[in-house]
Amino acid sequence: MASPVLFDRLTLIGVGLIGGSIARAARALGLVREIVATSRSEPTRQRIRELGLADAVADTSAAAVAGADLVMVCVPIGACAAVAKDIGPHLKPGATVSDVGSVKAAVVRDMAPHFPAGVHFIPGHPVAGTEDSGPDSGFAELFINRWCILTPPKDAEAAAVERLVQFWKAFGSSVEIMSPEHHDLVLAVTSHVPHLIAYNIVGTAFDLRNVTESEVLKYSAGGFRDFTRIAASDPTMWRDIFMNNKEAVLEVLGRFNEDLSTLTRAVRNGDADTLYNVFAERRAIRRGMIQFNLDSPAPDFQQPDGKPKAEPLPRPYAADD
Amino acid sequence: MASPVLFDRLTLIGVGLIGGSIARAARALGLVREIVATSRSEPTRQRIRELGLADAVADTSAAAVAGADLVMVCVPIGACAAVAKDIGPHLKPGATVSDVGSVKAAVVRDMAPHFPAGVHFIPGHPVAGTEDSGPDSGFAELFINRWCILTPPKDAEAAAVERLVQFWKAFGSSVEIMSPEHHDLVLAVTSHVPHLIAYNIVGTAFDLRNVTESEVLKYSAGGFRDFTRIAASDPTMWRDIFMNNKEAVLEVLGRFNEDLSTLTRAVRNGDADTLYNVFAERRAIRRGMIQFNLDSPAPDFQQPDGKPKAEPLPRPYAADD
Repeated sequence: MASPVLFDRLTLIGVGLIGGSIARAARALGLVREIVATSRSEPTRQRIRELGLADAVADTSAAAVAGADLVMVCVPIGACAAVAKDIGPHLKPGATVSDVGSVKAAVVRDMAPHFPAGVHFIPGHPVAGTEDSGPDSGFAELFINRWCILTPPKDAEAAAVERLVQFWKAFGSSVEIMSPEHHDLVLAVTSHVPHLIAYNIVGTAFDLRNVTESEVLKYSAGGFRDFTRIAASDPTMWRDIFMNNKEAVLEVLGRFNEDLSTLTRAVRNGDADTLYNVFAERRAIRRGMIQFNLDSPAPDFQQPDGKPKAEPLPRPYAADD
Repeated sequence: MASPVLFDRLTLIGVGLIGGSIARAARALGLVREIVATSRSEPTRQRIRELGLADAVADTSAAAVAGADLVMVCVPIGACAAVAKDIGPHLKPGATVSDVGSVKAAVVRDMAPHFPAGVHFIPGHPVAGTEDSGPDSGFAELFINRWCILTPPKDAEAAAVERLVQFWKAFGSSVEIMSPEHHDLVLAVTSHVPHLIAYNIVGTAFDLRNVTESEVLKYSAGGFRDFTRIAASDPTMWRDIFMNNKEAVLEVLGRFNEDLSTLTRAVRNGDADTLYNVFAERRAIRRGMIQFNLDSPAPDFQQPDGKPKAEPLPRPYAADD
């Protein structure tokens, strides 16, 4: 039994890793009848055609949204305001507009004023990604076993929210609803500050006197490699995240610095008990996390009978005890 | 054609992840004729017997080293001094003693005075590991495509050093020789400080008001998970590392903090150009690293004809472009 069609026409504005993955998954699962896509860059539009990711490729955002039932804006956060302004006058009454940005309060602030009454604006954020970008990098399985956060306004129409929830669940994601502000704090902790720290330590390592670049590269298996991996994501996306989630990021950074001062003091003083206790406690957190992830809701991607199918997580995360 | 026997009798003092992996690899490759193992704890000694990791299991380190040609000390750094004192009087003239600790200057300081003339003390550090520990966690392939650093004293006998180099190369590792002090600085950058930072951010995340533990766990795919993974290693090992590599760790931490102040200021000021340039530069570093790792020397593990066999790196690290 195929998945039910949730939207007749899906328009994708921006077809990078996330947009390209939505296109592939929506088509593979039969969630939409038709996909229209657009991109600001002509080479990307050409590549969308070559990859066959859409039924039609429009030259402008305004043209792309005509007649669309679901518009997914998949551009860097900094471009969202301009897109909203472009598409606002051309949206079909009753259409749903969503996005995939990693910051939500700023997106609401920038986009919502441009949408007419009768359009359902339900911002979203699939917490999924790889270090790759561009239309070639997407794949239909990206959202399996991942969370998607939606931040609908308080007066959102329940049926419209529910339909978008079903769309993400069909991709294999679990969906959570929260306020834009709470989203931004949670993501500052779990994603934005970790990325800033990773970018930072990569820079420190390569600027250090007496240690060559080649040495840093050679011995990165000792722990450093995990940092370079998260420091490899798209720089435009990350610039926009830090430009638009400043308060939450600075709050978490402040706490991080206080905690690091405590740990640094323990190293300086040779305080063995403090070091051991801190490390043991945090190891326990990791083990709790593995347990949690393995128990996370199973995806139903490509299960035509609709039965949930448990997918093991990639080995580096699942391997334990 | 089997690998040549490099040492008649190998004694392992401590059989955790590293010791257990050495036992399995040395036997699988036929690098030694006989393996004697010991552990401080009787349950671990019993487990070594059950797993068949050694030909004989001794109750004490002193008994274990009698007649050994190569003694590998695979205990936490903090226990190295006591082990050296115990085994010193019982070592066979001409025996080679090495270790696998993540800090080298302190190990040399603590162990070398206990060894009689005529014993070759060649400290070592295989830069390899997982988040697991204990005798069950070892596996013969752990050292493939990894680096092993040896820090022999200036007056070490060249033939003894060369034999130990061959031992590690047979495991599939590349071997580098450097001074203990340089090793400690390189590892502070590539491993020790990254671990401290990871431990730190895991603590910050779980102490934050307004964000629940469950939320941190749910959305960890956004970047945080990589940190918890490296924060999951053995707390005793890490306590000992920070107790014994204080100066290098504090130096690198100081640089890290300076750099983080700069990035924090860019976030606070909304300095888009600085943020973009920093992120783009560090992404390039990561891409250089992937290139580098893929070009690393191939292992010859389990290749009876001695031909090198290329092993792809685990997917999360190799996947790019």
